[in-house]
Amino acid sequence: MRIHVALTPADFAGLALDARAALVVDVFRATTTVVAACAAGCARIVPVLDREAALVAAAQFALSDVLLAGERGGMMITGFHLGNSPLEYVAERVAGRTVIFTTTNGTEAMLQAGRAAVAATAALVNAAAAAQWALAQDRDLTILCAGERRAFSLEDAVCAGIVIERMLSEVGSVDLTDAALAALRLGEHYAGRLERLELESEWGRHLARQGRAADLEACLRLGSSPLVPVFEAGVIVPGPGQPRSATPGWVPRGR
Amino acid sequence: MRIHVALTPADFAGLALDARAALVVDVFRATTTVVAACAAGCARIVPVLDREAALVAAAQFALSDVLLAGERGGMMITGFHLGNSPLEYVAERVAGRTVIFTTTNGTEAMLQAGRAAVAATAALVNAAAAAQWALAQDRDLTILCAGERRAFSLEDAVCAGIVIERMLSEVGSVDLTDAALAALRLGEHYAGRLERLELESEWGRHLARQGRAADLEACLRLGSSPLVPVFEAGVIVPGPGQPRSATPGWVPRGR
Repeated sequence: MRIHVALTPADFAGLALDARAALVVDVFRATTTVVAACAAGCARIVPVLDREAALVAAAQFALSDVLLAGERGGMMITGFHLGNSPLEYVAERVAGRTVIFTTTNGTEAMLQAGRAAVAATAALVNAAAAAQWALAQDRDLTILCAGERRAFSLEDAVCAGIVIERMLSEVGSVDLTDAALAALRLGEHYAGRLERLELESEWGRHLARQGRAADLEACLRLGSSPLVPVFEAGVIVPGPGQPRSATPGWVPRGR
Repeated sequence: MRIHVALTPADFAGLALDARAALVVDVFRATTTVVAACAAGCARIVPVLDREAALVAAAQFALSDVLLAGERGGMMITGFHLGNSPLEYVAERVAGRTVIFTTTNGTEAMLQAGRAAVAATAALVNAAAAAQWALAQDRDLTILCAGERRAFSLEDAVCAGIVIERMLSEVGSVDLTDAALAALRLGEHYAGRLERLELESEWGRHLARQGRAADLEACLRLGSSPLVPVFEAGVIVPGPGQPRSATPGWVPRGR
């Protein structure tokens, strides 16, 4: 198995993904929020590039089933039902509903990941579960770091590295590209001190300034979720590990 | 002072460099070779994109003054005088001469660095001197990692991180982007074990397979040179630290 990490969105264009597994990572906060939405029993998450695409996508569902969600620059979008805080995604709001989701960085990475043979979402909260999912695919893996405004984000590379570390602990022979090895080293460095990402990452500091300390804390709860939301035809659905009994508000809608 | 690292060539396009200092890094082997060429007393190094551009540039100099140099895929270019091994660049070959230089990854990064207000070349061999040069510019700094075929190279990021580490040891207040901080962490990890880059970096292994072990060893001699070759109107000239007395074969040509 060969593992590569696209460290910045600038690297996405050249990626050959069609025969590979992909994991998309946007720790602060989009992929953490996707895990939270699935834990709260949403039916599906539809990643879209912008507000206009969100309205087009929403029109395909019954009005009462749909939630418009996301952010721009870390702030909620006017007229939308939900922002991009994982703490907003509780069963009372999202159970059984379709979340149309657009964020500054995360959704572009999600749309790219959708090009892969199989794809799922990873964050620190489900890093161990995402590693298990990736191993089970038995394919070469590319981890796409969403970054920030097309630049490198420390926390996404650290998360990619922690996922790789967990994979290496289970299989011996994995071939890492230089970018995957760099992510692994960053994961090793920060794994025991994740709270430092709040202070050391640029986007972490930005969110802290916006009063998002509780969000940051939620995003840094390493391995707190067994869920691995997966892509099905460009839409994200609750994947393996979905604790249905733990989400009484969740009404399976069938696909 | 703010420091950024362009971790891959894919990041070069968006860089605003005109008011900044730039350091270009291609540890295996182009910027190490540039330092070696200057140590051996070359008059200047003219970075050009390809073989054709090399022939055009060469025509501007007296035939006996010019050396065509570089590589493609790590191999010497047919008809050229020199390859891209720092060990080839001895005073007997290059003293007083103009080196027209094209390599797979290094020269594109060099041409990008030439867009900055001030620019110089860094490698592990002159990391400490390059840090001193960067501090002396008193400008925001961008370090451009040449990478490999537009992808991330571990050794270039490590070198960028070691340069940053040396800068931080002399000044307190430096603002690092996430990419600069990631490079710093990689530099900290590998600084005491640079020999591992031979085995762990993809391009290091590639060069080892080509029988370039002596080159790799030369490229990993941390801080062995006081030279910082600098850019002047797109041409690289021996910069501060040039030990003129130590290069008896060097004939200053005046610019």
